[in-house]
Amino acid sequence: MKNVLIIGCGLLGSSLVRRISKKKIAKKIFIYDKSKSNITKIKKLRLPGTIVKSLKDGVLNSDLIIFCTPMSEYKKLILEINSFISAKTLITDIGSSKIESSKIIKKFLKKGVHWTRSHPITGSEVSGPEHGKDNMFEGKWCVLIKDKKTNFKHLKFLKSFWKKVGSKTVIMNSEKHDKIFSITSHLPHLIAYNLVKSAQDFEKIFKFNLIKYSAGGLRDFSRIAASNEVMWRDIFFDNKVNITKAIDLFIKNLKSFKKDINKKNNKSILKKLKKTKKVRTKIIKLKQDIDRPNFGRD
Amino acid sequence: MKNVLIIGCGLLGSSLVRRISKKKIAKKIFIYDKSKSNITKIKKLRLPGTIVKSLKDGVLNSDLIIFCTPMSEYKKLILEINSFISAKTLITDIGSSKIESSKIIKKFLKKGVHWTRSHPITGSEVSGPEHGKDNMFEGKWCVLIKDKKTNFKHLKFLKSFWKKVGSKTVIMNSEKHDKIFSITSHLPHLIAYNLVKSAQDFEKIFKFNLIKYSAGGLRDFSRIAASNEVMWRDIFFDNKVNITKAIDLFIKNLKSFKKDINKKNNKSILKKLKKTKKVRTKIIKLKQDIDRPNFGRD
Repeated sequence: MKNVLIIGCGLLGSSLVRRISKKKIAKKIFIYDKSKSNITKIKKLRLPGTIVKSLKDGVLNSDLIIFCTPMSEYKKLILEINSFISAKTLITDIGSSKIESSKIIKKFLKKGVHWTRSHPITGSEVSGPEHGKDNMFEGKWCVLIKDKKTNFKHLKFLKSFWKKVGSKTVIMNSEKHDKIFSITSHLPHLIAYNLVKSAQDFEKIFKFNLIKYSAGGLRDFSRIAASNEVMWRDIFFDNKVNITKAIDLFIKNLKSFKKDINKKNNKSILKKLKKTKKVRTKIIKLKQDIDRPNFGRD
Repeated sequence: MKNVLIIGCGLLGSSLVRRISKKKIAKKIFIYDKSKSNITKIKKLRLPGTIVKSLKDGVLNSDLIIFCTPMSEYKKLILEINSFISAKTLITDIGSSKIESSKIIKKFLKKGVHWTRSHPITGSEVSGPEHGKDNMFEGKWCVLIKDKKTNFKHLKFLKSFWKKVGSKTVIMNSEKHDKIFSITSHLPHLIAYNLVKSAQDFEKIFKFNLIKYSAGGLRDFSRIAASNEVMWRDIFFDNKVNITKAIDLFIKNLKSFKKDINKKNNKSILKKLKKTKKVRTKIIKLKQDIDRPNFGRD
């Protein structure tokens, strides 16, 4: 690969810039970001890429374009690049849900131009280029989407690219991807937002200052609920069918817990509480988290 | 204070033993634990306390008794100590909910014996004396319960005790305590268990191996859902009235999120998502969590 264009240089975009430069994965790295405050930060950080003022400059000189913006930006950007992009340039992205956004891409992207989708499973509750780091993708999964029309050559190219970036790759179709992440990522984030919202409501109703006693659970949720709201709105809207199903399953289970609690059904609740512990063991074993108690935060 | 008896030497009980010994808060520390495997561990760890085989030996020689067992053990233990405890010995505990368990204490504890309740806000997803540590309570809140019949002298004594243990103390009544912690701790734990349960159900239905993609949210919940199941069953049962109300508020809010998602109500969802971020800032400011992204786990 010669040159790469990163569109949207926030937490993940800037991490890609850092990593691509460090590992010399591309000859030149172009950065496009519509946010003036991001551009100021990128300059200050002296990120190893060339900031382009017009999308055209970046697109015409790149073999690979990586969309790192919230998904709601895709349509506008596609309409803009359509007038100068050629079929030689491959596009990918890092969006967290695929079905709905693929429809937008299919509908609006100029015919003949290829966009093969990626989803690196990484991130943080903080946003912006100042929080990016070159090892953001190290050892993390990157899902590559293979749908009916996916070009095998491009898939192979992206697989090799993400491996250089440090990720482990796995290939699946959009439907499977969106189902899995509705449960492992989208619902947990929604639940975290919802829990913090409920705590805020509670504080209002009872006029208790309760946030200061949040060490026992709420604080962990509050971390997740501090994630970028535009990105998450886009994900929730984009994957709404699966998320709705996940919400319904979640509420059904919660009502069952409520019943156990109200009836003091010892056997039923212990069975549930015991079983869930096994998932943690599995997660540690799969190296999806560190095994230090309390994340080693104390 | 001369001597202290720790009943139940698990994560928190053993942390108290370590701290009391280190800071020389008591002359002698007695340890009582009905679990043989715990006793074996305590011996192997050479914890700085004297293991007593009978409760009587510990109770008769102590000025302060601290119940560190699951709350469901209280009744049985109370009935046992009633036959030899005197009014000179003060009892406290570290139970996470207060209204229901206070009724048990009131109903069964020998008249004239004082039990003033404590709740140190600390813990971890791991259990057992091998995970205890002397700084477990350092800088953490400890709630002291002041109800109608609480003896002021005992409250003062416990306040001083917990300060020596490293905690910041705050006094409130059982009702306020149980309301606050139903939201900041009990509901979050239930939600975490419920989310992991829902992920397990999902895995079964779709036959997808999804736990390995849990980096994006589920893993944080899985940590909380790995907590001791007996302790949590007791808390859920004990504080069922407040937890039921919290569940209802949570479901109401979740349904409102679901509506926003289905209607793609941009304004409404962004308002909610933005507002919840503020809680994180507050939690960091109040030093209830560290401010490193992702808990600094990477």
